[in-house]
Amino acid sequence: MLITFEGIDGAGKSTQVKKLKKHLTENNHEVLVLREPGGTLVAEKIRDILLENKHDITPIGELLLFSASRAELVQQTILPALDNRAVVILDRFYDSTTAYQGYGRGLDLDILQSINTIASCGLVPDITFYLDISPEDALIRKFSEKSIPLAFEENELDRMESSGLDFYQRVREGYMKLVEHNDRFVLLNACDDPLALHHRILNHIVPLFSADRTQ
Amino acid sequence: MLITFEGIDGAGKSTQVKKLKKHLTENNHEVLVLREPGGTLVAEKIRDILLENKHDITPIGELLLFSASRAELVQQTILPALDNRAVVILDRFYDSTTAYQGYGRGLDLDILQSINTIASCGLVPDITFYLDISPEDALIRKFSEKSIPLAFEENELDRMESSGLDFYQRVREGYMKLVEHNDRFVLLNACDDPLALHHRILNHIVPLFSADRTQ
Repeated sequence: MLITFEGIDGAGKSTQVKKLKKHLTENNHEVLVLREPGGTLVAEKIRDILLENKHDITPIGELLLFSASRAELVQQTILPALDNRAVVILDRFYDSTTAYQGYGRGLDLDILQSINTIASCGLVPDITFYLDISPEDALIRKFSEKSIPLAFEENELDRMESSGLDFYQRVREGYMKLVEHNDRFVLLNACDDPLALHHRILNHIVPLFSADRTQ
Repeated sequence: MLITFEGIDGAGKSTQVKKLKKHLTENNHEVLVLREPGGTLVAEKIRDILLENKHDITPIGELLLFSASRAELVQQTILPALDNRAVVILDRFYDSTTAYQGYGRGLDLDILQSINTIASCGLVPDITFYLDISPEDALIRKFSEKSIPLAFEENELDRMESSGLDFYQRVREGYMKLVEHNDRFVLLNACDDPLALHHRILNHIVPLFSADRTQ
């Protein structure tokens, strides 16, 4: 089973990923949590390029590097894990590309879809949790989060502020369009209590496992 | 003006590129010769990944890395050079992707076209010289070339032999389809005398410059 989490930075994806992983592991599932870009020898090298050269890479180059890293991760790690009946949880997958590069930066959506399809080898998540939050609330949350090292937090804020709240608003609207047009999406209010959110997520996951077992 | 050279390894592209560059430079043109992957800070790092990890990269990952390197080269080097009225000569461009990954490896041609279009920012060569040679003749030529360092030559031969002559035959047929369907292609017999080929190439180039000047 492939479970993905989506949402703008500060929506609380990692918190929910951690809680879900803990729950599934305690219930004797083999669980693999992955985060793009990275996760294979080659994908980690691509990750280094993306992180070290943020200001030198064109948006299209960035898209293609992300997609190359995804292609490696899907073929060398995700597909083999799914074959071994592991539960794979991804903190972002190609919906992020559609929301950020497509709706956010204005790249052609049809071309993005072609690239997403080839990079993911046609793999589609069984379920996708979209944690919805306004860019303003996400920014406030980032400020008040104490667990993030200051340097990282400042980078995150810089990036968010330099991209502008307008950009994140377009990304959010893009996500909402994806939610409307894809049954696999579950829309969640990221401002709800984290534990309540976790239980709502479990309510969606449990029936999938039962259905899976009866196949 | 953007001039590209295509053909399987051993067709003699670099020889013709060198001769053409010499001629154009002597005729007071600003000439920039480029070879993929590479040519910008980020593209060189991508090149390193492609060369160092040949056996660890999936074909789709390779395609996307090549395309990312192309996107960087087009936007940061080729387009600015063309804006400055330089003549840009490319030893391979996206037709290689179509021939090798599409016809050779069997990746979906429509998806490849989308990726090629986005990676090249819609840039289309003014003229493309395709040097046609049979895989058998190309192999013999590689063996007998004395100017290539032995280590490199062996790698090339390994690669050619391990991919198999069938693969190169499919690549050649792919190129022939591209020639048939695109007016910008000039079909040349790579086994003709190099100097005769050079003059034939000039015969195609000169009218383009005249047309360019009268615009």
